[in-house]
Amino acid sequence: MPTFLRKLSSKKGMMPGAVVYTGKPRDAAIAISVIDYDEHGLEEEEKRSPDALRPYIETETVTWVNVDGIHDAEIVRHLGEVFGIHPLVLEDIVSPGQRAKVEPYPGYLFVLMKMIQFGAKQELKVEQVSFIIGPRFVLSFQEEAGDVLEAVRRRIRDSVGRIRRMGTDYLAYALMDAIVDYYYVIIEEIAERIEALEEDVIRQPEEATLQHIHELRQEVAFLRKAVWPLRDVISRLQEEDNDFFLDQTKLFLRDLYDHTMHVIETLDSFRDMLMGLMDLYQSSVSNRMNEVMQVLTIIGSIFIPLTFLAGIYGMNFEHMPELGWDFAYPYAFWAVMITLAGALVFYFQRKGWLR
Amino acid sequence: MPTFLRKLSSKKGMMPGAVVYTGKPRDAAIAISVIDYDEHGLEEEEKRSPDALRPYIETETVTWVNVDGIHDAEIVRHLGEVFGIHPLVLEDIVSPGQRAKVEPYPGYLFVLMKMIQFGAKQELKVEQVSFIIGPRFVLSFQEEAGDVLEAVRRRIRDSVGRIRRMGTDYLAYALMDAIVDYYYVIIEEIAERIEALEEDVIRQPEEATLQHIHELRQEVAFLRKAVWPLRDVISRLQEEDNDFFLDQTKLFLRDLYDHTMHVIETLDSFRDMLMGLMDLYQSSVSNRMNEVMQVLTIIGSIFIPLTFLAGIYGMNFEHMPELGWDFAYPYAFWAVMITLAGALVFYFQRKGWLR
Amino acid sequence: MPTFLRKLSSKKGMMPGAVVYTGKPRDAAIAISVIDYDEHGLEEEEKRSPDALRPYIETETVTWVNVDGIHDAEIVRHLGEVFGIHPLVLEDIVSPGQRAKVEPYPGYLFVLMKMIQFGAKQELKVEQVSFIIGPRFVLSFQEEAGDVLEAVRRRIRDSVGRIRRMGTDYLAYALMDAIVDYYYVIIEEIAERIEALEEDVIRQPEEATLQHIHELRQEVAFLRKAVWPLRDVISRLQEEDNDFFLDQTKLFLRDLYDHTMHVIETLDSFRDMLMGLMDLYQSSVSNRMNEVMQVLTIIGSIFIPLTFLAGIYGMNFEHMPELGWDFAYPYAFWAVMITLAGALVFYFQRKGWLR
Amino acid sequence: MPTFLRKLSSKKGMMPGAVVYTGKPRDAAIAISVIDYDEHGLEEEEKRSPDALRPYIETETVTWVNVDGIHDAEIVRHLGEVFGIHPLVLEDIVSPGQRAKVEPYPGYLFVLMKMIQFGAKQELKVEQVSFIIGPRFVLSFQEEAGDVLEAVRRRIRDSVGRIRRMGTDYLAYALMDAIVDYYYVIIEEIAERIEALEEDVIRQPEEATLQHIHELRQEVAFLRKAVWPLRDVISRLQEEDNDFFLDQTKLFLRDLYDHTMHVIETLDSFRDMLMGLMDLYQSSVSNRMNEVMQVLTIIGSIFIPLTFLAGIYGMNFEHMPELGWDFAYPYAFWAVMITLAGALVFYFQRKGWLR
Amino acid sequence: MPTFLRKLSSKKGMMPGAVVYTGKPRDAAIAISVIDYDEHGLEEEEKRSPDALRPYIETETVTWVNVDGIHDAEIVRHLGEVFGIHPLVLEDIVSPGQRAKVEPYPGYLFVLMKMIQFGAKQELKVEQVSFIIGPRFVLSFQEEAGDVLEAVRRRIRDSVGRIRRMGTDYLAYALMDAIVDYYYVIIEEIAERIEALEEDVIRQPEEATLQHIHELRQEVAFLRKAVWPLRDVISRLQEEDNDFFLDQTKLFLRDLYDHTMHVIETLDSFRDMLMGLMDLYQSSVSNRMNEVMQVLTIIGSIFIPLTFLAGIYGMNFEHMPELGWDFAYPYAFWAVMITLAGALVFYFQRKGWLR
Repeated sequence: MPTFLRKLSSKKGMMPGAVVYTGKPRDAAIAISVIDYDEHGLEEEEKRSPDALRPYIETETVTWVNVDGIHDAEIVRHLGEVFGIHPLVLEDIVSPGQRAKVEPYPGYLFVLMKMIQFGAKQELKVEQVSFIIGPRFVLSFQEEAGDVLEAVRRRIRDSVGRIRRMGTDYLAYALMDAIVDYYYVIIEEIAERIEALEEDVIRQPEEATLQHIHELRQEVAFLRKAVWPLRDVISRLQEEDNDFFLDQTKLFLRDLYDHTMHVIETLDSFRDMLMGLMDLYQSSVSNRMNEVMQVLTIIGSIFIPLTFLAGIYGMNFEHMPELGWDFAYPYAFWAVMITLAGALVFYFQRKGWLR
Repeated sequence: MPTFLRKLSSKKGMMPGAVVYTGKPRDAAIAISVIDYDEHGLEEEEKRSPDALRPYIETETVTWVNVDGIHDAEIVRHLGEVFGIHPLVLEDIVSPGQRAKVEPYPGYLFVLMKMIQFGAKQELKVEQVSFIIGPRFVLSFQEEAGDVLEAVRRRIRDSVGRIRRMGTDYLAYALMDAIVDYYYVIIEEIAERIEALEEDVIRQPEEATLQHIHELRQEVAFLRKAVWPLRDVISRLQEEDNDFFLDQTKLFLRDLYDHTMHVIETLDSFRDMLMGLMDLYQSSVSNRMNEVMQVLTIIGSIFIPLTFLAGIYGMNFEHMPELGWDFAYPYAFWAVMITLAGALVFYFQRKGWLR
Repeated sequence: MPTFLRKLSSKKGMMPGAVVYTGKPRDAAIAISVIDYDEHGLEEEEKRSPDALRPYIETETVTWVNVDGIHDAEIVRHLGEVFGIHPLVLEDIVSPGQRAKVEPYPGYLFVLMKMIQFGAKQELKVEQVSFIIGPRFVLSFQEEAGDVLEAVRRRIRDSVGRIRRMGTDYLAYALMDAIVDYYYVIIEEIAERIEALEEDVIRQPEEATLQHIHELRQEVAFLRKAVWPLRDVISRLQEEDNDFFLDQTKLFLRDLYDHTMHVIETLDSFRDMLMGLMDLYQSSVSNRMNEVMQVLTIIGSIFIPLTFLAGIYGMNFEHMPELGWDFAYPYAFWAVMITLAGALVFYFQRKGWLR
Repeated sequence: MPTFLRKLSSKKGMMPGAVVYTGKPRDAAIAISVIDYDEHGLEEEEKRSPDALRPYIETETVTWVNVDGIHDAEIVRHLGEVFGIHPLVLEDIVSPGQRAKVEPYPGYLFVLMKMIQFGAKQELKVEQVSFIIGPRFVLSFQEEAGDVLEAVRRRIRDSVGRIRRMGTDYLAYALMDAIVDYYYVIIEEIAERIEALEEDVIRQPEEATLQHIHELRQEVAFLRKAVWPLRDVISRLQEEDNDFFLDQTKLFLRDLYDHTMHVIETLDSFRDMLMGLMDLYQSSVSNRMNEVMQVLTIIGSIFIPLTFLAGIYGMNFEHMPELGWDFAYPYAFWAVMITLAGALVFYFQRKGWLR
Repeated sequence: MPTFLRKLSSKKGMMPGAVVYTGKPRDAAIAISVIDYDEHGLEEEEKRSPDALRPYIETETVTWVNVDGIHDAEIVRHLGEVFGIHPLVLEDIVSPGQRAKVEPYPGYLFVLMKMIQFGAKQELKVEQVSFIIGPRFVLSFQEEAGDVLEAVRRRIRDSVGRIRRMGTDYLAYALMDAIVDYYYVIIEEIAERIEALEEDVIRQPEEATLQHIHELRQEVAFLRKAVWPLRDVISRLQEEDNDFFLDQTKLFLRDLYDHTMHVIETLDSFRDMLMGLMDLYQSSVSNRMNEVMQVLTIIGSIFIPLTFLAGIYGMNFEHMPELGWDFAYPYAFWAVMITLAGALVFYFQRKGWLR
């Protein structure tokens, strides 16, 4: 699980502001797609080189440049040059494993957050997404192709709702909102897993159940760590002196903030639930151990003394008068046996150990 | 339990501000009831269409419009149009599972909170209630028919207390107060369940007890999560620059705030109590296991060596001089047996294992 | 224990500000006692009706009206009318189970706190005490007769210290101080119980010890919940813009604040101590179980193999050459037995299981 | 351990500001020592009566009056009269068991803190030390003779460093610093005990180890409670509007604050370490129980079935054909025995229960 | 582990501001190295005496003086004299075991932090590093030779990036950044150890695993304690009124702050993971104990009653009619035996105790 720390140190010894990719090696080609729109028109294209983006900078239309893949640091650097981005920002963009953050720079706002999806094997896949929000453009950088922003693209293309009438601040909001909305999908899936585990613990707790609880606990902790700093980020976007966002859009950010808080609180309650499940599991195991011990104790306590008695009369002493009595075995012996066993059964019954 | 997360994600991919119902499907008809009153008169009616409410907007009387059912988003949208409500507010109203919140909008205040009742099977039922508080009207939206506001209605009808003399702010307060008052009913019921569980744990702890503790813990956590954000909500309503509420009414809000704090603190202490019960349960199980083991150990430790002795003289060696002694069995053997057993019993007694 | 929640809900459905007693039913007569004093004189009387108090309102002397019993709401309402008290305050006074709080009203200050005493059976008894502090009068309301304020009365009567020379603010402080001072008595008693429990856990942990720890934990939690809000109350009394208290008296409040903090911190450390005792108890039980198991294991492991050996030579096979050897039983057999037993004893010794 | 609460309540019922000793009874004579110095001269004396101190008040030199013993409240009251100290301050001085605090009074500053030393039996001994810091004098009050301030006295006598050139604020700082420095000695001793306990837990965990952990936990909690409020005290001394301390001396206070924080953080980490040790201890006990059980299980599981087999052929049925076979005992029987035992040993080996 | 507290108390009794080394004794010679540079030139030298540094003070170039070894307090004192440093700062520099802190002094800024490296045996080695940041010089003090700053030296020598064009504030940032960057290496190593431990716990939990978890927990706690105060330090460096750092460099500090937060949050999550592992370990042990008990219970419960039966017919009573029946042994007896054993096996199977 703690693979999210892998290669964090590979940048060690590099100077600050060095735009060098530090994530795990990839070889997919980097894709640059542009959507340029205003209320009246829309243009959507794939670009090869950052230079091809220069024409969009001056226009009054909203330009959304999405970059899939940050492992070719050269392209990111080039793009940064075209749009005039500070090297520290570019460094953050190409270094996966950053905390979510917002940083105002002259002329643009830098927002970094985590996109969470399920991978092929239903494992959690956290991707770093960076946004650079300028007055007439939004740049977004993702680690690899495949995202949760398709719905936003569709709304732009089909001019659904107000998005085509609004500026880059609303676009940025819409993108962040789509990412946070997807957290709910993740959370719902985890809720279902917890429910399933709960049933397992109650029905038949096994060692595997324990490990699933443990894994889920770590996943929840991991998610919380990814989402938690987003709270500050959005709250800072809403601040009065932030003029990248119009007041009108800040109403929407207020909503986004609530959603983020909701996700965090839900993850917190998941954490508590899983701790509770762990307790329940351990108590179940103790209970079962108790049950096992009771069976052994009951059977042992009844038969060990009886076996001793039988052992007595299996001895070969020459002088054992009882052996010669006629009624000894069929009556006396069995009577003693049954009385003794009955007394013990009665004792255990009173103790409540027999069911 | 975590059903409160169900369908949270069904809105994924929709644009923000889309007024689409996202809760579980329902088919009850939506009921719109109006109570319009001032100090001198009262009018109470059921309306079919939001349009029928237009006449009430202009009048000087206080108008309370209650909507039971939010699953027909069209009606909510229509109503929002009539009263001039922002789409984001309407979106929140028709999306169950929001956090409690307060949001000021030009001309009205939006308050969202949780109404908690017991369902048919005494399970907790959390319903989202939204209030829109305007200068001459209060709109309230509930998920389904049946609420805890009947007492307020009665006080309006019978003109009990000051309610007929006061404005919409007092009405809004009275409605919120009724909801928070009902939290006490819930809390009292839970307190009784905890007391019953405590007795169970002390009398005879069973696996079922454990599960009840676990369930109650989750219910308490769930309630706390529902009530906790209300604290901020009420505290923000009291703020000086909030002019939807008169100073006079803010005195009452201060009281409401205290009640909410009381509920939260009580839930916190419930949580601690249930954790304590869990500990008590586990210690009880350990104690009982100890007792079980002691019985086995005492019986085993006494009879296993004795059986060995009996086994010795059950051997068929030809040369076992003891077998021929006259006093061997009736005296020597039994003497050894009884001495040995007595020594062990004395040892266990000193250990404190015999009661 | 959670009886403190009882009847909280009985007010459900009543309008706010309704002065209706909500505590447990009582039938003792309500006693109104007045102490009216200044530096030069003192008058002490029992009154029947609130109306008889009117003469005291105008005078320059300090008037302390103490009401024992709040179950006759009518008398409280009447008294409120005489002194011009807001209905919300009266409602709080007659509703036991409120949180400690302070609320400034025009012309007087409302302070509500908890008086804690030991009951007849040494159980904790929490009583709600309300103070209304006006410029020339202090009203105090208690749930029943019997309080910890006797020392203050004596100091007034005997004119000990400065109390006769000071105003109502000092009187109010002296009353609150007497209540907080008594918390120390409670705390000391609990400290002694914890010490006794600690000894029990170390000497001989029993199931009853466990329950005592559990009960004490709940009592401490309960006390903390009662005292905790007092911190805010006193800190708000000290605030600069509070002009019900003279600067001179605020020096004393600073002291009172420290005492309250001390009580809270001590309760917190009690909580930790009791958690530690719980851990110690559980470890003790584990240790004892271990000891029990060791005895069984040692005896079982030594005698079970020996019994098997004896069983071998108790078999009735016709061809068992060993049985005929002369030295077999007295020498070979016992030698094997003793060697085997010795080896096992040596093994257990090395394991450290024999003492 | 919670003896620190003893006699807290003995003041119950006394009026605030009553200068009455509330600690445990002592009979040592109270010693008043004076050190009066400036850059040029030094005078050191023992005084009998507070009146003898009057001459020092007016002089320009720095006067440090140290009082060993506060159980004769009359002397303290007298001294307070000489220096013009508020009764509330005197009350705090003679009441051991206060929280550390700082209180500005007109003309002097009152600081109360805890001096911690090891007693004769290496137990923790917490003494309350009060400082009254005036413009030309510092009064210090201790519960009994023997302190950690000797180094400061030596520095004054030998004029080491800047102390003789500085005012009362530096003297006060130096005294507080000496007390906080001694906390490090305490902490170091505790660190060594924790290390020793850690080794015990790993080597051979015994019941006594458990109790030592428990005791140390309580001592650490107790220390933390004594030191914690000092943080606020020093931070308030550093505040800008505190003009009892020169800016120059506030640089030193900054250092003292860091040391106090360090002590608190170290105590916190001790607490965590001891909790960790408790966990380790419990796991060790579980592990050992497991080992004990394994031995019993292995021996029992092998020999109980074999004994049964031997029992079979010890029966006296007339018709048991196997008994007559020639090879039955020496070959078949032993073969079966050894095979069975071998199979079980193999099974346990595979389970990893044999070593 | 708590060796980090060793010798903390050796300064006890010394006056504040005494520049006396308090760490563990060392005898390596102290090395003073100077790097003096600006955009155009670079000079790098080893100096013997602090006096040799005087020429660098006046020049406009950036001068970085690094001191390896602080155990010769005289040299540090001398150096402090040359650069005009306050004695309190020098005292902190030569006292290892301080908390990270920042203190502004007139003319320079004092920053103290922890450099963490792995020692020869992969154990954590925490070294105290102090920086004095003046307008034209940076002094750095380390406890011993060997650091993580080599990369910065290389960047200066090779004029990589902006470092040669920037002032002392950027140099100070670069040095702090190098130290924090190295924290990631430490964290990554710990992450790998946790992963390995996790596998051990799941595969085969042993006592040694438990101790490793315990040790790692303490190391993580220790690291957190070292890094935690750095958060405040960097945040205070960023404050607006701090003019030792240019706005331009504060952008970089923002980044450094994020990294520090990331390290702290990761250490927190490590702590939780290790707590989770401890839980997992304990549950695993319980599970295995359960398994052990089940084997004993199954075998015991089956064979103990059977052995009793065999014992019955091994008795020597003269009158035991069953013994004479022809079919008794081969049919009846075995039938009873097998039926009984089968019934028990069936019972255990239903209980789910057989796999």
